[in-house]
Amino acid sequence: MSTRGNLFIVSAPSGAGKSSLISALLKDKPADKQVSVSHTTRKPRPGEENGVHYHFVSVDEFKALIAQDAFFEWAEVFGNFYGTSRLTVQATLERGIDVFLDIDWQGAQQVKKLMPEAMGIFILPPSREELERRLIGRGQDSDEVIASRMAQAVSEMSHYTEYEYVIVNDNFDEALADLQAIIRAGRLTCAGQARTHGDMLKGLLAD
Amino acid sequence: MSTRGNLFIVSAPSGAGKSSLISALLKDKPADKQVSVSHTTRKPRPGEENGVHYHFVSVDEFKALIAQDAFFEWAEVFGNFYGTSRLTVQATLERGIDVFLDIDWQGAQQVKKLMPEAMGIFILPPSREELERRLIGRGQDSDEVIASRMAQAVSEMSHYTEYEYVIVNDNFDEALADLQAIIRAGRLTCAGQARTHGDMLKGLLAD
Repeated sequence: MSTRGNLFIVSAPSGAGKSSLISALLKDKPADKQVSVSHTTRKPRPGEENGVHYHFVSVDEFKALIAQDAFFEWAEVFGNFYGTSRLTVQATLERGIDVFLDIDWQGAQQVKKLMPEAMGIFILPPSREELERRLIGRGQDSDEVIASRMAQAVSEMSHYTEYEYVIVNDNFDEALADLQAIIRAGRLTCAGQARTHGDMLKGLLAD
Repeated sequence: MSTRGNLFIVSAPSGAGKSSLISALLKDKPADKQVSVSHTTRKPRPGEENGVHYHFVSVDEFKALIAQDAFFEWAEVFGNFYGTSRLTVQATLERGIDVFLDIDWQGAQQVKKLMPEAMGIFILPPSREELERRLIGRGQDSDEVIASRMAQAVSEMSHYTEYEYVIVNDNFDEALADLQAIIRAGRLTCAGQARTHGDMLKGLLAD
């Protein structure tokens, strides 16, 4: 018996600050947390490391993984394959590491179907006005482009009720502390603790 | 729509450090957390304040509360009545305050029957040896007394699986941080956030 990591799905509309929160969470390279690394058949670009940015595999290897039903989801984009490996995620969880999947609501539904114990976290911006401000960005886009971004954000946000937890990213440090609390509490569930402390519990409960 | 507090049940065998953890949690008198205060018909002792140590009420008042089905549980001990008021707890939760019930597994089952959304937290000592050390105390008790305390602790601990969360109190500061993480995460559930941020969400999700 040993600790098992938890799988967290993190979703948000663009402009909510999801990437910054995940980066801050993993900044000090904690041994017990990592984002899921996708598999791809495209060639590494300069600076990209195998196992860090992607798992770089051949088309034959990728197809073998599809045949093994290894992926939560996969897609072919401009002739290259991309996929999130369920088997890699499970192996990482078994090593006691929490895994974060940075995916949208459609990916989340897919993962939940295959691993219902995954905990969903949805990150929201603090207000409509602030989201607009963030989506306008440097002010170089047309009204149509901004309106389309806003429509996409609203469509993504309409799925927030499908997640276990919701973080409102008003103050970055508070939102990060929220995220850390959810992760810490995730390790304290009765089932998780029973597994982590199995031997100790046997001793405690002996007559 | 406004924030609603969560109800936490905290149980532990004696020697696990539950009282010290709850005291540390409430040390700075946070506005959004309190332990549940019981009702009693006994007279206040010197230094005891109404509403702080107990809600001091007359026998007639107590019986009226029983008739209103106000209590999770109540008992008569040496001619005095004691009870934990469900109505008081609910009113406190409605004011956005988290309420902590410091009760044993029997009380916990009773509360869960009436308020299934209550979150149970069970606190365990780090090992059998450490628990024995803590139960022996100042070494003035007979082996029989210590054995009986241990048997009672084991009996209480055998119910840990009935709780949502388990904290192993090995290092006090870590155990306190665990407790705080559970409480913080409790405010971030989707249903809770939908209630807390109802108006903001309406604005965010408008077309």
